[in-house]
Amino acid sequence: METIKNYIEENRERFLEELFDLIRIPSVSSKAENKNDMFRAAEFIRDQLLKAGADKAEVYKTDGHPVIYGEKIIGDDKPTVLVYGHYDVQPAEPLEKWDSDPFEPEIREGKIYARGADDDKGQLFMHLKAFEFMMRTETLPCNIKFMIEGEEEIGSPNLKIFCQKYKNMLASDVILVSDTTMIARDIPSITVGLRGLSYMEVEVTGPDRDLHSGLYGGAVVNPVNVLSKMIASLTDENNRVTIKGFYDDVLEATDEERKELAKRPFNIDEYKKSINVDEVTGEVGYTTIERLGIRPSLDVNGIWGGYTGEGAKTILPSKASAKISMRLVPNQKSKKIDKLFEEHFKSIAPEGVKVKVRSLHSGEGYVAPVDSPAYLAASKACEDTFGKKPIPVRSGGSIPVVADFEEVLGVKSILLGFGLDSDAIHSPNENYPLYNFFKGIETIPLFFKYFAEMK
Amino acid sequence: METIKNYIEENRERFLEELFDLIRIPSVSSKAENKNDMFRAAEFIRDQLLKAGADKAEVYKTDGHPVIYGEKIIGDDKPTVLVYGHYDVQPAEPLEKWDSDPFEPEIREGKIYARGADDDKGQLFMHLKAFEFMMRTETLPCNIKFMIEGEEEIGSPNLKIFCQKYKNMLASDVILVSDTTMIARDIPSITVGLRGLSYMEVEVTGPDRDLHSGLYGGAVVNPVNVLSKMIASLTDENNRVTIKGFYDDVLEATDEERKELAKRPFNIDEYKKSINVDEVTGEVGYTTIERLGIRPSLDVNGIWGGYTGEGAKTILPSKASAKISMRLVPNQKSKKIDKLFEEHFKSIAPEGVKVKVRSLHSGEGYVAPVDSPAYLAASKACEDTFGKKPIPVRSGGSIPVVADFEEVLGVKSILLGFGLDSDAIHSPNENYPLYNFFKGIETIPLFFKYFAEMK
Repeated sequence: METIKNYIEENRERFLEELFDLIRIPSVSSKAENKNDMFRAAEFIRDQLLKAGADKAEVYKTDGHPVIYGEKIIGDDKPTVLVYGHYDVQPAEPLEKWDSDPFEPEIREGKIYARGADDDKGQLFMHLKAFEFMMRTETLPCNIKFMIEGEEEIGSPNLKIFCQKYKNMLASDVILVSDTTMIARDIPSITVGLRGLSYMEVEVTGPDRDLHSGLYGGAVVNPVNVLSKMIASLTDENNRVTIKGFYDDVLEATDEERKELAKRPFNIDEYKKSINVDEVTGEVGYTTIERLGIRPSLDVNGIWGGYTGEGAKTILPSKASAKISMRLVPNQKSKKIDKLFEEHFKSIAPEGVKVKVRSLHSGEGYVAPVDSPAYLAASKACEDTFGKKPIPVRSGGSIPVVADFEEVLGVKSILLGFGLDSDAIHSPNENYPLYNFFKGIETIPLFFKYFAEMK
Repeated sequence: METIKNYIEENRERFLEELFDLIRIPSVSSKAENKNDMFRAAEFIRDQLLKAGADKAEVYKTDGHPVIYGEKIIGDDKPTVLVYGHYDVQPAEPLEKWDSDPFEPEIREGKIYARGADDDKGQLFMHLKAFEFMMRTETLPCNIKFMIEGEEEIGSPNLKIFCQKYKNMLASDVILVSDTTMIARDIPSITVGLRGLSYMEVEVTGPDRDLHSGLYGGAVVNPVNVLSKMIASLTDENNRVTIKGFYDDVLEATDEERKELAKRPFNIDEYKKSINVDEVTGEVGYTTIERLGIRPSLDVNGIWGGYTGEGAKTILPSKASAKISMRLVPNQKSKKIDKLFEEHFKSIAPEGVKVKVRSLHSGEGYVAPVDSPAYLAASKACEDTFGKKPIPVRSGGSIPVVADFEEVLGVKSILLGFGLDSDAIHSPNENYPLYNFFKGIETIPLFFKYFAEMK
């Protein structure tokens, strides 16, 4: 019987060529100009599913970008795994920071460099190829369903509706997601916690047009100075968020939980070196692992206002804007935080400015059990391929749909990601090591095998 | 004998067509792409001077953009007036805020709309046409010299050197400058004070690349949050600048001076309405007129960092930057303030970031006497044409070269400007009312007449 290792060896070049064809479609969900590319990417994945042997695969229109649903049903008595992934990507900007074209993948030093190489085209593709293998070798032990969306990077505004509408079609025993990282190439891990997200945009307006900074400076409110003061006041000297009620729903970790977290292998010097900072900072009283895994945060993602070109333009700007996001921990509710933020931000505006606040994106955090059949199956699969038992970790990132799946479909997810923190997802020079890509394809069929055995 | 009023009437269309041709040359001094346009604008002005009747007029190369020098000498026993102006303009951005092309002048409701319509092409052009009139009618009563530069909007980095080099050629009794405003269409005024300027650019760097705000947020320094806190701390709750030593050289105005300032006609409600703000702000303890005329200020002119496009990109930015300028009052020295700012700004940077500070532009403030022959001549000329004695005012703006002229050439300037605050110089929809343009042409020959009589 053909093994997965042999199958990868024989089809290696084709796998990469197919993945590269998908990456070449610039499916940036936040940009109106890429609307048509979203359809092209969706059709590409549908065709991949059909070629691999799905009974059916279709592109479903939504109010936003389309969702692909596909399935292979082998028997009513078999357990069902629903694979979730997303074909949309973050914008590639700033383009000048890339060493190669973000939409023309290049392999350098054993890594695929491109926007989406990891997040999530690369990780999603591992599932398509593992499925293809199980079909060719007739080893698929479970029913398999695929739900691949195109709006993850903009907060999945239509996926919850899709799940509600097609709840029966999507019925499953577990949802399998590869959109997270493992600790290191030689330290497998399974993500058992995610943070929620509340992403806001604010605009502060002073005078109704840019003014001459000499003729008006010192006598008229400056919206950039004001916005700076407002942002500065959102966190205190201990790096705690000052929004009233922000921490009300945060569950404080027990000493036991903190001890468990501290066991995760983590080298602070390597961490600092990897991002080239002399010092780490964060909420006083917590470790870096805790700040990311079990504590909420507030970051400005972007700021702009006034003259930003070459040289010295002496204006007092009319407007200043910022994108400000908060990562939330399980039990904090994003809609409540959106509201607290908006009320607080408006309340701290000084006289003489007008303030607008809107929510761009929000979603809930998530925690998964470490004793479920899915977790045990994933753990066993990783142990087989990596030779080590994986470590359960709580990630700082967010996949808001995972909480939605639990709410709407009543099914827990297993977050079996093969990325690395060094993959620079959402950044210039995003990459995905070939090692991880092929290791993922090797591990996934084992998950199906063990999951079928345990159910 | 032909009067100036008749001459304007007969040549009105030609004057405007010639001015429009100058405005159409996009002579933006801060942009490298407009380097050639600077030469075209300089040659245009040289040709205007020669056609009007100058003995000589030449384009002088400098290390930056060229200077035009021209002269008409009528006799060693006559007083000499040196006219200063600038042919360079501010960038027109943001272009989408203009109602018409900034470099294709349009007349709407009696105003010329274009970049440079007032500052300073329109105001400079009044001198060319007044000179033309005095030559045609053989009424020029003084020697006249022109020095027109192309780097005013970027801080005149080469003009001081030019003045040092050609000190003898530039010898004069007074320097006449039209690059300021009058209080209102029916309230003439003469500027007797200007503020200095210290214009800095700062950059704060955290991690060496943009990071995923979920995977790193809360544990790594965010340069936008940091820059906001640093900017916020530059001014206190009384809107006073917190930089150590900033106010050391500021001369506090006497009660007498403050009483004089309060006499200037000023309607705070109209002022607020004109820029569409509910409230004015500024240094506690001073009026709006005082905040602009005799107090220094600190304004952010522009800020940028992170993702500023459509939608929600979840990054923790690598860098944040701002342009920050301070208006200074006479006796404050800009180079000293540059240094105080740099030291202070670096001293307030928290651990984990790298900070760069550089000066983009600096210059000194200026005060002029109200009893000099030049002031009295300008006052009498305005009284003739506007029917009202002009009011001496201290402007919030800066023309750093005016202090340089006094230092290098040993000559005071008379700031006889005809702009209005509503001309939106440095802003979208810059404009210059035809009334002011023609009133300026009418007033200038009278200045020459009275100045010759008084010397």
